[in-house]
Amino acid sequence: MTFAATVLTLYPDMFPGPLGISLAGRALADGTWSLDTVHIRDFATDRHRTVDDTPAGGGAGMVLKADVLAAAIDHARAARPACPVLAMTPRGAPLTQARVRALAAGPGVTILCGRFEGFDERIFAGRDVEEIAVGDVVLSGGEPAALLLLDACVRLLPGVMGAAASGTEESFENGLLEYPQYTRPVEWEGRAIPEVLRSGDHARIAAWRRARAEEDTRARRPDLWAARLKGDRP
Amino acid sequence: MTFAATVLTLYPDMFPGPLGISLAGRALADGTWSLDTVHIRDFATDRHRTVDDTPAGGGAGMVLKADVLAAAIDHARAARPACPVLAMTPRGAPLTQARVRALAAGPGVTILCGRFEGFDERIFAGRDVEEIAVGDVVLSGGEPAALLLLDACVRLLPGVMGAAASGTEESFENGLLEYPQYTRPVEWEGRAIPEVLRSGDHARIAAWRRARAEEDTRARRPDLWAARLKGDRP
Repeated sequence: MTFAATVLTLYPDMFPGPLGISLAGRALADGTWSLDTVHIRDFATDRHRTVDDTPAGGGAGMVLKADVLAAAIDHARAARPACPVLAMTPRGAPLTQARVRALAAGPGVTILCGRFEGFDERIFAGRDVEEIAVGDVVLSGGEPAALLLLDACVRLLPGVMGAAASGTEESFENGLLEYPQYTRPVEWEGRAIPEVLRSGDHARIAAWRRARAEEDTRARRPDLWAARLKGDRP
Repeated sequence: MTFAATVLTLYPDMFPGPLGISLAGRALADGTWSLDTVHIRDFATDRHRTVDDTPAGGGAGMVLKADVLAAAIDHARAARPACPVLAMTPRGAPLTQARVRALAAGPGVTILCGRFEGFDERIFAGRDVEEIAVGDVVLSGGEPAALLLLDACVRLLPGVMGAAASGTEESFENGLLEYPQYTRPVEWEGRAIPEVLRSGDHARIAAWRRARAEEDTRARRPDLWAARLKGDRP
Protein backbone atom coordinates (compact mmCIF):
# COMPACT_ATOMS: atom_id res chain seq x y z
CA MET A 1 0.00 0.00 0.00
CA THR A 2 1.33 3.40 -0.93
CA PHE A 3 1.72 5.95 1.87
CA ALA A 4 -0.10 9.04 0.59
CA ALA A 5 1.44 12.39 1.54
CA THR A 6 -0.40 15.59 0.63
CA VAL A 7 1.00 19.04 1.42
CA LEU A 8 -1.12 22.20 1.41
CA THR A 9 1.23 25.10 0.80
CA LEU A 10 1.75 28.47 -0.85
CA TYR A 11 5.10 27.16 -2.17
CA PRO A 12 4.50 23.83 -3.94
CA ASP A 13 7.94 24.17 -5.60
CA MET A 14 9.56 23.40 -2.24
CA PHE A 15 8.44 19.76 -2.69
CA PRO A 16 9.77 17.12 -2.99
CA GLY A 17 13.02 19.11 -2.53
CA PRO A 18 15.36 17.01 -0.39
CA LEU A 19 12.79 14.19 -0.34
CA GLY A 20 13.42 13.61 -4.05
CA ILE A 21 16.98 12.46 -3.27
CA SER A 22 18.58 9.47 -1.55
CA LEU A 23 16.45 7.15 0.60
CA ALA A 24 13.16 9.06 0.39
CA GLY A 25 13.72 9.83 -3.28
CA ARG A 26 14.19 6.18 -4.20
CA ALA A 27 11.10 5.23 -2.19
CA LEU A 28 9.13 7.96 -3.97
CA ALA A 29 10.33 6.70 -7.37
CA ASP A 30 9.43 3.09 -6.61
CA GLY A 31 5.93 3.94 -5.37
CA THR A 32 6.42 3.18 -1.66
CA TRP A 33 4.97 6.61 -1.02
CA SER A 34 3.32 9.35 -3.08
CA LEU A 35 3.55 13.11 -2.72
CA ASP A 36 0.90 15.56 -3.89
CA THR A 37 0.87 19.29 -3.31
CA VAL A 38 -2.23 21.46 -3.08
CA HIS A 39 -1.66 25.15 -3.78
CA ILE A 40 -3.59 27.07 -1.13
CA ARG A 41 -3.87 30.07 -3.45
CA ASP A 42 -6.03 28.02 -5.83
CA PHE A 43 -8.80 28.24 -3.21
CA ALA A 44 -8.91 32.02 -2.94
CA THR A 45 -12.25 33.41 -4.03
CA ASP A 46 -11.49 36.98 -5.14
CA ARG A 47 -9.83 38.13 -8.32
CA HIS A 48 -6.64 39.11 -6.44
CA ARG A 49 -6.40 35.49 -5.18
CA THR A 50 -6.11 36.76 -1.60
CA VAL A 51 -5.12 34.14 0.97
CA ASP A 52 -4.37 36.34 3.99
CA ASP A 53 -5.56 39.45 5.78
CA THR A 54 -4.44 41.68 8.66
CA PRO A 55 -4.70 40.31 12.23
CA ALA A 56 -7.90 41.14 14.11
CA GLY A 57 -6.93 43.43 16.98
CA GLY A 58 -3.84 44.71 15.17
CA GLY A 59 -0.22 43.66 15.00
CA ALA A 60 2.47 42.91 12.42
CA GLY A 61 2.23 40.32 9.67
CA MET A 62 -0.69 38.67 7.95
CA VAL A 63 -2.99 35.80 8.95
CA LEU A 64 -4.13 33.01 6.60
CA LYS A 65 -7.89 33.18 6.10
CA ALA A 66 -10.07 30.42 7.56
CA ASP A 67 -12.42 30.32 4.58
CA VAL A 68 -9.59 29.80 2.07
CA LEU A 69 -7.85 27.21 4.27
CA ALA A 70 -11.12 25.35 4.78
CA ALA A 71 -11.71 25.06 1.03
CA ALA A 72 -8.16 23.72 0.52
CA ILE A 73 -8.54 21.22 3.37
CA ASP A 74 -11.93 20.06 2.12
CA HIS A 75 -10.42 19.45 -1.30
CA ALA A 76 -7.52 17.42 0.14
CA ARG A 77 -9.77 15.48 2.49
CA ALA A 78 -12.12 14.50 -0.32
CA ALA A 79 -9.14 12.98 -2.14
CA ARG A 80 -7.70 11.25 0.96
CA PRO A 81 -10.52 10.85 3.50
CA ALA A 82 -8.56 8.38 5.67
CA CYS A 83 -5.50 10.60 6.15
CA PRO A 84 -5.24 12.77 9.28
CA VAL A 85 -4.74 16.51 8.69
CA LEU A 86 -1.82 18.08 10.56
CA ALA A 87 -0.90 21.76 10.68
CA MET A 88 2.72 22.72 11.35
CA THR A 89 2.70 25.50 13.96
CA PRO A 90 4.83 26.47 16.97
CA ARG A 91 1.61 26.42 19.04
CA GLY A 92 1.17 22.68 18.37
CA ALA A 93 2.02 19.54 20.30
CA PRO A 94 5.70 18.63 20.01
CA LEU A 95 6.28 15.96 17.38
CA THR A 96 7.39 12.63 18.86
CA GLN A 97 8.78 9.45 17.35
CA ALA A 98 5.66 7.65 18.64
CA ARG A 99 3.46 9.98 16.56
CA VAL A 100 5.75 9.42 13.56
CA ARG A 101 5.46 5.65 13.97
CA ALA A 102 1.67 5.87 14.18
CA LEU A 103 1.50 8.03 11.05
CA ALA A 104 3.88 5.72 9.14
CA ALA A 105 1.66 2.74 10.00
CA GLY A 106 -1.39 4.49 8.55
CA PRO A 107 -2.62 5.37 5.06
CA GLY A 108 -0.74 8.67 4.83
CA VAL A 109 -0.82 12.24 6.08
CA THR A 110 -2.12 15.60 4.89
CA ILE A 111 0.02 18.53 6.07
CA LEU A 112 -1.06 22.17 6.19
CA CYS A 113 1.81 24.68 6.00
CA GLY A 114 1.36 28.27 7.14
CA ARG A 115 3.29 31.43 6.32
CA PHE A 116 3.34 34.92 7.84
CA GLU A 117 1.73 35.22 11.28
CA GLY A 118 0.00 31.86 10.97
CA PHE A 119 -3.50 30.52 10.69
CA ASP A 120 -6.87 31.94 11.66
CA GLU A 121 -7.42 29.98 14.86
CA ARG A 122 -10.95 28.96 13.89
CA ILE A 123 -9.64 26.52 11.26
CA PHE A 124 -8.42 24.03 13.88
CA ALA A 125 -11.76 23.32 15.49
CA GLY A 126 -13.68 24.02 12.31
CA ARG A 127 -11.88 21.31 10.32
CA ASP A 128 -10.48 18.85 12.89
CA VAL A 129 -6.86 19.78 12.31
CA GLU A 130 -4.11 18.51 14.62
CA GLU A 131 -1.53 21.19 15.50
CA ILE A 132 2.07 19.89 15.53
CA ALA A 133 5.33 21.66 16.40
CA VAL A 134 8.78 20.52 15.29
CA GLY A 135 11.33 21.92 17.69
CA ASP A 136 10.66 24.95 19.88
CA VAL A 137 11.52 27.34 17.07
CA VAL A 138 9.73 29.74 14.74
CA LEU A 139 10.09 29.16 10.99
CA SER A 140 9.33 31.33 7.97
CA GLY A 141 6.63 28.78 7.17
CA GLY A 142 5.58 25.20 7.85
CA GLU A 143 7.36 23.76 4.82
CA PRO A 144 10.73 22.84 6.42
CA ALA A 145 8.84 21.16 9.26
CA ALA A 146 6.67 19.25 6.75
CA LEU A 147 9.77 17.99 4.94
CA LEU A 148 11.26 16.83 8.23
CA LEU A 149 8.04 15.07 9.30
CA LEU A 150 7.74 13.27 5.97
CA ASP A 151 11.39 12.18 6.06
CA ALA A 152 10.84 10.68 9.52
CA CYS A 153 7.74 8.81 8.30
CA VAL A 154 9.12 7.56 4.98
CA ARG A 155 12.21 5.90 6.43
CA LEU A 156 9.90 3.71 8.55
CA LEU A 157 7.83 2.45 5.60
CA PRO A 158 8.32 -1.26 4.81
CA GLY A 159 11.39 -1.88 2.66
CA VAL A 160 12.81 1.64 2.80
CA MET A 161 15.57 1.15 5.35
CA GLY A 162 15.99 -2.63 5.03
CA ALA A 163 17.38 -4.37 8.09
CA ALA A 164 18.41 -1.11 9.73
CA ALA A 165 14.74 -0.13 9.95
CA SER A 166 13.95 -2.51 12.77
CA GLY A 167 14.58 0.62 14.77
CA THR A 168 14.29 -1.02 18.15
CA GLU A 169 17.63 0.41 19.27
CA GLU A 170 17.08 3.93 17.96
CA SER A 171 16.75 7.08 19.97
CA PHE A 172 13.30 7.63 21.55
CA GLU A 173 12.43 3.92 21.54
CA ASN A 174 11.78 2.80 25.13
CA GLY A 175 11.98 6.48 26.09
CA LEU A 176 15.79 6.53 25.79
CA LEU A 177 18.42 8.13 23.60
CA GLU A 178 20.47 5.68 21.59
CA TYR A 179 23.84 4.56 22.96
CA PRO A 180 26.95 6.07 21.32
CA GLN A 181 28.37 4.43 18.20
CA TYR A 182 31.98 3.80 17.15
CA THR A 183 33.71 2.36 14.13
CA ARG A 184 37.26 1.82 12.84
CA PRO A 185 39.98 2.90 13.33
CA VAL A 186 40.23 1.38 16.82
CA GLU A 187 42.40 4.29 17.90
CA TRP A 188 41.91 7.76 16.45
CA GLU A 189 43.96 10.73 17.64
CA GLY A 190 44.64 8.99 20.94
CA ARG A 191 40.97 8.12 21.51
CA ALA A 192 40.20 4.39 21.58
CA ILE A 193 36.93 2.59 20.96
CA PRO A 194 35.71 1.35 24.40
CA GLU A 195 37.28 -2.05 25.07
CA VAL A 196 33.96 -3.79 25.73
CA LEU A 197 32.82 -3.14 22.15
CA ARG A 198 35.89 -5.04 20.91
CA SER A 199 35.38 -7.96 23.31
CA GLY A 200 33.06 -10.03 21.14
CA ASP A 201 31.05 -10.73 24.30
CA HIS A 202 27.50 -10.02 23.15
CA ALA A 203 25.96 -10.00 26.62
CA ARG A 204 28.56 -7.52 27.93
CA ILE A 205 28.12 -5.35 24.86
CA ALA A 206 24.32 -5.29 25.27
CA ALA A 207 24.66 -4.44 28.97
CA TRP A 208 27.16 -1.63 28.27
CA ARG A 209 24.95 -0.16 25.56
CA ARG A 210 21.90 -0.28 27.78
CA ALA A 211 23.79 1.41 30.63
CA ARG A 212 25.15 4.14 28.31
CA ALA A 213 21.70 4.76 26.80
CA GLU A 214 20.30 5.26 30.31
CA GLU A 215 23.24 7.35 31.50
CA ASP A 216 23.18 9.64 28.44
CA THR A 217 19.40 10.05 28.61
CA ARG A 218 19.57 11.02 32.29
CA ALA A 219 22.39 13.51 31.68
CA ARG A 220 21.28 14.99 28.35
CA ARG A 221 17.51 14.75 28.52
CA PRO A 222 16.27 14.86 32.10
CA ASP A 223 12.80 15.53 30.66
CA LEU A 224 12.74 12.21 28.79
CA TRP A 225 14.20 10.42 31.79
CA ALA A 226 11.55 11.82 34.14
CA ALA A 227 8.75 10.92 31.70
CA ARG A 228 10.11 7.38 31.46
CA LEU A 229 10.23 6.98 35.23
CA LYS A 230 6.64 8.15 35.44
CA GLY A 231 5.70 5.59 32.81
CA ASP A 232 4.27 8.09 30.34
CA ARG A 233 6.58 7.34 27.49
CA PRO A 234 6.01 9.70 24.60
CA MET B 1 27.65 41.32 7.15
CA THR B 2 26.71 38.11 5.38
CA PHE B 3 25.60 35.20 7.57
CA ALA B 4 27.77 32.29 6.42
CA ALA B 5 26.10 28.87 6.40
CA THR B 6 28.19 25.81 5.58
CA VAL B 7 26.69 22.32 5.43
CA LEU B 8 28.80 19.15 5.56
CA THR B 9 26.78 16.40 3.90
CA LEU B 10 26.82 13.32 1.69
CA TYR B 11 23.97 14.89 -0.31
CA PRO B 12 24.97 18.43 -1.35
CA ASP B 13 22.15 18.38 -3.94
CA MET B 14 19.63 18.70 -1.10
CA PHE B 15 20.76 22.35 -0.70
CA PRO B 16 19.52 25.03 -0.96
CA GLY B 17 16.32 23.06 -1.74
CA PRO B 18 13.41 24.89 -0.08
CA LEU B 19 15.81 27.60 1.11
CA GLY B 20 16.26 28.71 -2.50
CA ILE B 21 12.60 29.84 -2.62
CA SER B 22 10.51 32.58 -1.00
CA LEU B 23 11.89 34.51 1.98
CA ALA B 24 15.14 32.57 2.44
CA GLY B 25 15.68 32.36 -1.31
CA ARG B 26 15.40 36.12 -1.78
CA ALA B 27 17.76 36.71 1.14
CA LEU B 28 20.23 34.22 -0.38
CA ALA B 29 20.02 35.97 -3.75
CA ASP B 30 20.58 39.43 -2.26
CA GLY B 31 23.59 38.31 -0.20
CA THR B 32 22.06 38.55 3.28
CA TRP B 33 23.34 35.03 3.81
CA SER B 34 25.57 32.59 1.92
CA LEU B 35 25.31 28.82 1.65
CA ASP B 36 28.24 26.51 0.93
CA THR B 37 28.18 22.73 0.95
CA VAL B 38 31.13 20.49 1.74
CA HIS B 39 30.87 16.95 0.38
CA ILE B 40 31.99 14.63 3.16
CA ARG B 41 32.99 12.00 0.61
CA ASP B 42 35.69 14.32 -0.73
CA PHE B 43 37.59 13.67 2.51
CA ALA B 44 37.70 9.89 2.25
CA THR B 45 41.25 8.59 1.94
CA ASP B 46 40.91 5.24 0.16
CA ARG B 47 40.26 4.62 -3.51
CA HIS B 48 36.69 3.45 -2.77
CA ARG B 49 36.02 6.84 -1.11
CA THR B 50 34.73 5.07 2.01
CA VAL B 51 33.00 7.30 4.57
CA ASP B 52 31.46 4.70 6.87
CA ASP B 53 32.14 1.35 8.46
CA THR B 54 30.28 -1.26 10.55
CA PRO B 55 29.48 -0.43 14.20
CA ALA B 56 32.03 -1.58 16.75
CA GLY B 57 30.33 -4.24 18.87
CA GLY B 58 27.91 -5.19 16.08
CA GLY B 59 24.47 -4.03 15.05
CA ALA B 60 22.62 -2.86 11.95
CA GLY B 61 23.58 0.09 9.78
CA MET B 62 26.84 1.91 9.23
CA VAL B 63 28.70 4.56 11.26
CA LEU B 64 30.41 7.63 9.77
CA LYS B 65 34.16 7.45 10.34
CA ALA B 66 35.79 9.91 12.76
CA ASP B 67 38.89 10.40 10.60
CA VAL B 68 36.87 11.34 7.51
CA LEU B 69 34.52 13.61 9.47
CA ALA B 70 37.49 15.32 11.17
CA ALA B 71 39.10 16.12 7.82
CA ALA B 72 35.83 17.60 6.52
CA ILE B 73 35.31 19.65 9.68
CA ASP B 74 38.92 20.91 9.64
CA HIS B 75 38.42 22.05 6.05
CA ALA B 76 35.19 23.90 6.89
CA ARG B 77 36.64 25.42 10.04
CA ALA B 78 39.67 26.75 8.19
CA ALA B 79 37.31 28.60 5.84
CA ARG B 80 34.99 29.87 8.62
CA PRO B 81 36.95 29.84 11.89
CA ALA B 82 34.42 32.01 13.75
CA CYS B 83 31.39 29.82 13.01
CA PRO B 84 30.30 27.22 15.58
CA VAL B 85 30.07 23.63 14.33
CA LEU B 86 26.78 21.87 15.04
CA ALA B 87 25.92 18.23 14.35
CA MET B 88 22.29 17.25 13.81
CA THR B 89 21.61 14.13 15.89
CA PRO B 90 18.74 12.79 18.00
CA ARG B 91 21.23 12.47 20.88
CA GLY B 92 21.76 16.24 20.91
CA ALA B 93 20.33 19.09 22.96
CA PRO B 94 16.86 20.11 21.76
CA LEU B 95 17.01 23.15 19.50
CA THR B 96 15.44 26.25 21.06
CA GLN B 97 14.48 29.65 19.71
CA ALA B 98 17.06 31.17 22.08
CA ARG B 99 19.82 29.12 20.39
CA VAL B 100 18.47 30.15 16.98
CA ARG B 101 18.55 33.82 18.00
CA ALA B 102 22.13 33.49 19.26
CA LEU B 103 23.23 31.81 16.03
CA ALA B 104 21.46 34.40 13.87
CA ALA B 105 23.26 37.18 15.77
CA GLY B 106 26.64 35.60 15.00
CA PRO B 107 28.85 35.21 11.92
CA GLY B 108 27.17 32.03 10.68
CA VAL B 109 26.96 28.31 11.37
CA THR B 110 28.61 25.14 10.11
CA ILE B 111 26.30 22.11 10.19
CA LEU B 112 27.37 18.47 10.08
CA CYS B 113 24.73 16.09 8.71
CA GLY B 114 24.90 12.36 9.41
CA ARG B 115 23.35 9.39 7.64
CA PHE B 116 22.92 5.73 8.53
CA GLU B 117 23.50 4.88 12.21
CA GLY B 118 25.18 8.20 12.91
CA PHE B 119 28.60 9.51 13.83
CA ASP B 120 31.58 7.90 15.49
CA GLU B 121 31.14 9.35 18.98
CA ARG B 122 34.78 10.44 19.21
CA ILE B 123 34.23 13.24 16.71
CA PHE B 124 32.26 15.34 19.20
CA ALA B 125 34.99 15.74 21.79
CA GLY B 126 37.76 15.46 19.19
CA ARG B 127 36.54 18.48 17.21
CA ASP B 128 34.42 20.57 19.61
CA VAL B 129 31.14 19.82 17.88
CA GLU B 130 27.81 20.80 19.48
CA GLU B 131 25.14 18.09 19.18
CA ILE B 132 21.67 19.44 18.37
CA ALA B 133 18.32 17.63 18.00
CA VAL B 134 15.31 19.00 16.13
CA GLY B 135 12.21 17.32 17.47
CA ASP B 136 12.28 13.99 19.30
CA VAL B 137 12.32 12.04 16.05
CA VAL B 138 14.76 9.98 14.01
CA LEU B 139 15.48 11.09 10.43
CA SER B 140 17.12 9.37 7.48
CA GLY B 141 19.87 11.96 7.85
CA GLY B 142 20.59 15.36 9.31
CA GLU B 143 19.74 17.28 6.14
CA PRO B 144 16.03 18.02 6.84
CA ALA B 145 17.00 19.24 10.32
CA ALA B 146 19.75 21.44 8.84
CA LEU B 147 17.28 23.01 6.41
CA LEU B 148 14.88 23.73 9.28
CA LEU B 149 17.61 25.23 11.47
CA LEU B 150 18.82 27.49 8.66
CA ASP B 151 15.28 28.63 7.86
CA ALA B 152 14.79 29.59 11.51
CA CYS B 153 18.06 31.56 11.52
CA VAL B 154 17.67 33.29 8.16
CA ARG B 155 14.25 34.80 8.90
CA LEU B 156 15.82 36.62 11.88
CA LEU B 157 18.61 38.24 9.85
CA PRO B 158 18.30 42.04 9.51
CA GLY B 159 15.95 43.04 6.70
CA VAL B 160 14.62 39.57 5.90
CA MET B 161 11.24 39.77 7.61
CA GLY B 162 10.82 43.53 7.69
CA ALA B 163 8.57 44.87 10.42
CA ALA B 164 7.20 41.44 11.25
CA ALA B 165 10.66 40.36 12.39
CA SER B 166 10.56 42.29 15.63
CA GLY B 167 9.44 38.92 16.88
CA THR B 168 8.71 40.03 20.41
CA GLU B 169 5.23 38.50 20.30
CA GLU B 170 6.23 35.21 18.70
CA SER B 171 6.03 31.78 20.24
CA PHE B 172 8.89 30.95 22.64
CA GLU B 173 9.66 34.59 23.42
CA ASN B 174 9.22 35.16 27.17
CA GLY B 175 8.82 31.38 27.48
CA LEU B 176 5.26 31.48 26.10
CA LEU B 177 3.41 30.25 23.05
CA GLU B 178 1.99 33.01 20.91
CA TYR B 179 -1.67 33.99 21.41
CA PRO B 180 -4.15 32.81 18.76
CA GLN B 181 -4.65 34.90 15.63
CA TYR B 182 -7.83 35.76 13.71
CA THR B 183 -8.67 37.65 10.57
CA ARG B 184 -11.72 38.45 8.42
CA PRO B 185 -14.43 37.35 7.94
CA VAL B 186 -15.71 38.36 11.39
CA GLU B 187 -18.02 35.36 11.37
CA TRP B 188 -17.04 32.13 9.63
CA GLU B 189 -19.27 29.04 9.74
CA GLY B 190 -20.92 30.30 12.91
CA ARG B 191 -17.59 31.03 14.63
CA ALA B 192 -16.97 34.69 15.47
CA ILE B 193 -13.70 36.52 16.07
CA PRO B 194 -13.54 37.20 19.84
CA GLU B 195 -15.31 40.50 20.54
CA VAL B 196 -12.37 42.05 22.36
CA LEU B 197 -10.24 41.92 19.20
CA ARG B 198 -12.87 44.02 17.43
CA SER B 199 -13.16 46.57 20.26
CA GLY B 200 -10.33 48.88 19.16
CA ASP B 201 -9.33 49.07 22.85
CA HIS B 202 -5.59 48.48 22.67
CA ALA B 203 -5.11 47.92 26.39
CA ARG B 204 -7.93 45.33 26.54
CA ILE B 205 -6.56 43.60 23.44
CA ALA B 206 -3.05 43.43 24.91
CA ALA B 207 -4.41 42.04 28.19
CA TRP B 208 -6.53 39.43 26.40
CA ARG B 209 -3.60 38.31 24.25
CA ARG B 210 -1.32 38.04 27.26
CA ALA B 211 -3.91 35.98 29.15
CA ARG B 212 -4.49 33.67 26.17
CA ALA B 213 -0.74 33.18 25.64
CA GLU B 214 -0.38 32.16 29.29
CA GLU B 215 -3.49 29.98 29.27
CA ASP B 216 -2.51 28.16 26.07
CA THR B 217 1.07 27.64 27.24
CA ARG B 218 -0.14 26.16 30.54
CA ALA B 219 -2.60 23.84 28.79
CA ARG B 220 -0.55 22.84 25.74
CA ARG B 221 3.02 22.95 27.00
CA PRO B 222 3.17 22.32 30.75
CA ASP B 223 6.93 21.79 30.28
CA LEU B 224 7.44 25.35 29.01
CA TRP B 225 5.15 26.70 31.68
CA ALA B 226 7.03 24.93 34.48
CA ALA B 227 10.39 26.13 33.10
CA ARG B 228 9.05 29.69 32.99
CA LEU B 229 7.85 29.57 36.59
CA LYS B 230 11.26 28.31 37.66
CA GLY B 231 12.84 31.21 35.81
CA ASP B 232 14.99 29.11 33.50
CA ARG B 233 13.57 30.28 30.26
CA PRO B 234 15.00 28.36 27.32
